[in-house]
Amino acid sequence: MTTDARDVRPGTADAGPSARLRPLFAPRGVVVVGASRDSSKLGAVMARSLSAFPGPVAGVNPRDVAPDERRYAAVADAADALGVPLDLAVLCVPAAASAGALTAAAAGGVRAALVCAGGYAEAGGPGIGYQRDLVDAARRSEVVLLGPNTSGFIAPARGLTASFVPGVGAVPAGSVAVVAASGGVNHALAFMLAEAGIGVSLAVGLGNAVDVTAADVLTYLLDDPATRAVALHVESVADGPALASAVEALCARVPVVALVVGRNDVADFARSHTGALATSWRVTRAALRQAGAVVVDDERALVDAVTALSLIRLPAASRPGVAVVTAQAGPGLLHADGLAGTGVHVPTLAGDTRDRLSALLPALTYQANPVDTGRPGETFPGVLAAVAADPAIDVVSVYALAEPDSLDLPAAFAAAGSMAALVATGGPATEVAAIRDALLPLGIPTLSSPAALTTAVTALVHDAQARARAAGRLRQPSTPAESDPRVRDALARTEFDEDAAKALLGILGIGTLARAACDSRDEAHAALIALGGPVVVKLLDAAVVHKSDISGVHLGIRDPAELDRALDALHAAGAQRFLVEKQAGPGIDLIVGATRDPVFGPVVLVGLGGVLAEALADVATAPAPLFASEAAELLDELVGRALLDGFRGGPFVDRGAVGRILAVLGDLLVADGRLESVEINPLRITADGILALDAVVSFEEVP
Amino acid sequence: MTTDARDVRPGTADAGPSARLRPLFAPRGVVVVGASRDSSKLGAVMARSLSAFPGPVAGVNPRDVAPDERRYAAVADAADALGVPLDLAVLCVPAAASAGALTAAAAGGVRAALVCAGGYAEAGGPGIGYQRDLVDAARRSEVVLLGPNTSGFIAPARGLTASFVPGVGAVPAGSVAVVAASGGVNHALAFMLAEAGIGVSLAVGLGNAVDVTAADVLTYLLDDPATRAVALHVESVADGPALASAVEALCARVPVVALVVGRNDVADFARSHTGALATSWRVTRAALRQAGAVVVDDERALVDAVTALSLIRLPAASRPGVAVVTAQAGPGLLHADGLAGTGVHVPTLAGDTRDRLSALLPALTYQANPVDTGRPGETFPGVLAAVAADPAIDVVSVYALAEPDSLDLPAAFAAAGSMAALVATGGPATEVAAIRDALLPLGIPTLSSPAALTTAVTALVHDAQARARAAGRLRQPSTPAESDPRVRDALARTEFDEDAAKALLGILGIGTLARAACDSRDEAHAALIALGGPVVVKLLDAAVVHKSDISGVHLGIRDPAELDRALDALHAAGAQRFLVEKQAGPGIDLIVGATRDPVFGPVVLVGLGGVLAEALADVATAPAPLFASEAAELLDELVGRALLDGFRGGPFVDRGAVGRILAVLGDLLVADGRLESVEINPLRITADGILALDAVVSFEEVP
Repeated sequence: MTTDARDVRPGTADAGPSARLRPLFAPRGVVVVGASRDSSKLGAVMARSLSAFPGPVAGVNPRDVAPDERRYAAVADAADALGVPLDLAVLCVPAAASAGALTAAAAGGVRAALVCAGGYAEAGGPGIGYQRDLVDAARRSEVVLLGPNTSGFIAPARGLTASFVPGVGAVPAGSVAVVAASGGVNHALAFMLAEAGIGVSLAVGLGNAVDVTAADVLTYLLDDPATRAVALHVESVADGPALASAVEALCARVPVVALVVGRNDVADFARSHTGALATSWRVTRAALRQAGAVVVDDERALVDAVTALSLIRLPAASRPGVAVVTAQAGPGLLHADGLAGTGVHVPTLAGDTRDRLSALLPALTYQANPVDTGRPGETFPGVLAAVAADPAIDVVSVYALAEPDSLDLPAAFAAAGSMAALVATGGPATEVAAIRDALLPLGIPTLSSPAALTTAVTALVHDAQARARAAGRLRQPSTPAESDPRVRDALARTEFDEDAAKALLGILGIGTLARAACDSRDEAHAALIALGGPVVVKLLDAAVVHKSDISGVHLGIRDPAELDRALDALHAAGAQRFLVEKQAGPGIDLIVGATRDPVFGPVVLVGLGGVLAEALADVATAPAPLFASEAAELLDELVGRALLDGFRGGPFVDRGAVGRILAVLGDLLVADGRLESVEINPLRITADGILALDAVVSFEEVP
Repeated sequence: MTTDARDVRPGTADAGPSARLRPLFAPRGVVVVGASRDSSKLGAVMARSLSAFPGPVAGVNPRDVAPDERRYAAVADAADALGVPLDLAVLCVPAAASAGALTAAAAGGVRAALVCAGGYAEAGGPGIGYQRDLVDAARRSEVVLLGPNTSGFIAPARGLTASFVPGVGAVPAGSVAVVAASGGVNHALAFMLAEAGIGVSLAVGLGNAVDVTAADVLTYLLDDPATRAVALHVESVADGPALASAVEALCARVPVVALVVGRNDVADFARSHTGALATSWRVTRAALRQAGAVVVDDERALVDAVTALSLIRLPAASRPGVAVVTAQAGPGLLHADGLAGTGVHVPTLAGDTRDRLSALLPALTYQANPVDTGRPGETFPGVLAAVAADPAIDVVSVYALAEPDSLDLPAAFAAAGSMAALVATGGPATEVAAIRDALLPLGIPTLSSPAALTTAVTALVHDAQARARAAGRLRQPSTPAESDPRVRDALARTEFDEDAAKALLGILGIGTLARAACDSRDEAHAALIALGGPVVVKLLDAAVVHKSDISGVHLGIRDPAELDRALDALHAAGAQRFLVEKQAGPGIDLIVGATRDPVFGPVVLVGLGGVLAEALADVATAPAPLFASEAAELLDELVGRALLDGFRGGPFVDRGAVGRILAVLGDLLVADGRLESVEINPLRITADGILALDAVVSFEEVP
């Protein structure tokens, strides 16, 4: 081994954020540690996978050295013999031996290692120790480590298949990067992207992710010009803010589409899989969405979304306009129905556009948007051009069966001129592939069905909206919460009863009703006189959070006799102090709050009040800090959002005002790390304004 | 033309329910009326499509007769010349000429006609008349008519492509029949089924369905041994009971999977498409489900579901057990997460089974169900056999990437022995196709992804559950409603105030509280004394349905002074009569009722009470008559169903009792055609029983 070769470490010359993973994903040479002649052994499978790599691939097996087959006793020997740095080692050795093998490989010049096998932390028992040793060895030797417990990665444009599924070498080079928690999902997605005619730039399965995390790979992709869209699969997250920040940085360059596992209770199985608890599905999705990712519900939607986003990115817009053009009304109707369900904006076309269309199409077709062309023919390019030119339209979504006799779709698009457009088609496989391959150079993605088209269009719209939100952040005023010295003073106390909590809310600008904290019955009677009835009388004790559970709340108190009865009952329940408060008028009750997620840190939450909303778990969440306008949008995620806009004569909720309250509460948790949560339940939207009727401020329990 | 040939009308010998459509789908000869040499004309396209038909195909064009090319002046000439009955005519003539062409074709011996072109009712204007004339001509000449405004049908096993999309001739013969409202959707589905490796037995687009309806085609399929599952696409329904009854009859033989368009507001576009209003999405789905169909949400789910159901039908069961076996934990986790979301039962495996598995699998894998095999190998058949043998397991769902080196899936299943199983896989297209084609003869369907597998498994379970429900119907007691002479007497009146409505409910066995209908203040005071407070006092007037809108309801009346205040207010609101009723205790409020759907007739509805439930439109519905046990299951379709089972200390709802009430209300509408609706709102579930607190009985408005 020459000293020169070892000193040319890839990436060290470039201090960019992606430099660290270059020895892993762009190695100059590869060595399989644990090479084997037994074709069923992992070492042999890996060597077969790596056989297409254009650079040198060596094997290491001290018990079976054969230099003519590039199999050596040690990595250093291999590097010496081949005269090229072997940046990447693929370790195919038992878990117990992996730390030693990694250290030895590093001594031979290796800068990155892939460990596919399982038997580490996910297996429990001695595997926990093997994993710790492996991580220690990687840290000490400054080797980048992918895995363990993964099926590896592929980089087709480099001819690099570092996977124990050799068939994945058939996946073509393309423009989508896959970053998957699971090796199996990584392969499944890569095959699906091949089938979709898109291919991959890089496809990585993270496995136990003890060193290289999703955030690291996303950061690597910042500098990868081949990647035009990213498919991210998430099972668990160790460092929420790091992941969110990597997604946010990458989304500024390329779209990221994320699939988060664990909507339902599959925690036991998930833990057995990678040794980590599935992260809160809801919070993870919210955090990724806030960071700019498009969030989808299953792996097919993931593939449809990246297929579209790898070719098209709409300009940032809060409500992009979609035109639907259909050569067959039936599939078009399925697509339009789907779009209506996702809330995508399909605006009625302008009068000018409709005039143009009526000159091109038979009178019997629907032309307002969706545009039904009837049986498509030679006017199809004109229809596409007219629709794309409509000022309300940002993207054209087309369904057309493959009918080479009557419609040449690629030619029609070429004739119509450049536009943002997507196509879904159906037909014999060869015809569909021909259409798809001809549309690709025009920047037009081809989907496989109306539902796939709906998913793809929705992804384009969500990506454009995410960037509009990101742009909005640059122009936002700051919220008052943490800069006010009165807030700091209020937070100096270590426990908050309801009165103190509401005092804090008052400083934060959140409405409360006139109230008096009373240490005696006399004070309570004086408060009733001062406030005037009806009042609410409550037990006042920072230690009692769920007052209504112990009959600690009495409503509608109007006169001294009623007050005495209420005070008697509260005394009987153990109350020493009382809160006497004006009673609120009717309205819509919300639950709003901020709490601390174990993975992502402070998050805000908002939901509708009432037992049905609770039974539905109808809550929207987002990481804090966030701007009031972003927080306000959370209300639109609620299933019961129809209630917020004057439903059945009810009030209209001032979304901006609720958003400001959420933002302020989020800021509060960001500002004071001791705070565990602040919850206002209910926050009542009344004709007289928005009022916090009860509030609980909790501190982290110190064990 | 020989008299003999014309007299041998197909189907007339067989009086079975499917005989009528045999000339259409199984013709002995076909004639294209409006044949053309111009390859862009419909007549020429149709002739090209039909060129693979093994029987005689003639053309008719009086202006271009060429007997050597089988083109004649009239159908009779063609039949004479060819000596074979031309059962099916494909009419490629303008809409205005189609009625005449059909009559002429019938005179030439044609028994069935396909009209693909548009320009009929869906186009409005003169098209309405063309359609009427065409229908009249078909009726007079007893010709079965498919269309107009459809792309036709294909019957690959007969070499019959009667479609203006010749490429659809590439769809292979298979075991799924497609019955689609739209010609375009029919083609899209046929191509998707080809892509799925399944193929079609028959694929029909109904278009305007002026004669041949979905119900007719479903009935035809009763006698088609090649069809093992049916994909049904519904846009609008003219005769709801006919469709439901055809589905019910067919489901006894083969599974039917239905996709109903129109979840969202796309009515304008839908009407333009076939000239018919989209039928109520909710009621149509409910009716198809009650008839035994599996209902899905999009066309991909439709294809996944029929792919599975064409090969497997589980025994009827209310809760089939599914085992998940995965060769890669990550995709398995996506699948398990999906199944958990659909409510499919994935039972923990028995101790015996787990013992057997632990002997076959490495200790590190999860084996309770899902069963994670780690990296699969030679024990895979043993794992499959052990899981399939578990008494709680009805079907085995497997995810495994294509890894020919480590796992031969078809061989593993062959070794494991016969079982109900499904597979999803991923890999290079050729490997996936090879696996799929090898599993097909074993009766094992192959899906393309974890989400597709989830859809397929869920469809198998829903089909088994539908048959369990159908079997339950045979053992059900009848409900009391219509047989009771007191009910007939009660229904003799023409209008119902609340008291009369509740009297009717009482006869039907539905609980109400003690009450008195009062014609004067004195009577009201007497009622208060007799009933004891607290009572509710309401305006009593059959003409006022929404009493609370006009302050016609006063709660919590305990003494004469309060009663007088309430009576004053009711007088002021115009009340002449009063209902004084005991006040109910707290509980959970439901809305239950029966109403008359314009397409499907009587239906029952149930929803949770309260404004949020109303805002969510959280209502379940089913056609009446239905059995109490079926009606009870509607409660489990409610989004807010968690509230029904003691949520937050609330009551447990007696589903059987609510089901009986729904069934009785449904029977009432079935029994008396004048009744428009009966609504109980709220029906309160209290600790003291189930009580109708308000009820409205409405009659059809006679114009």
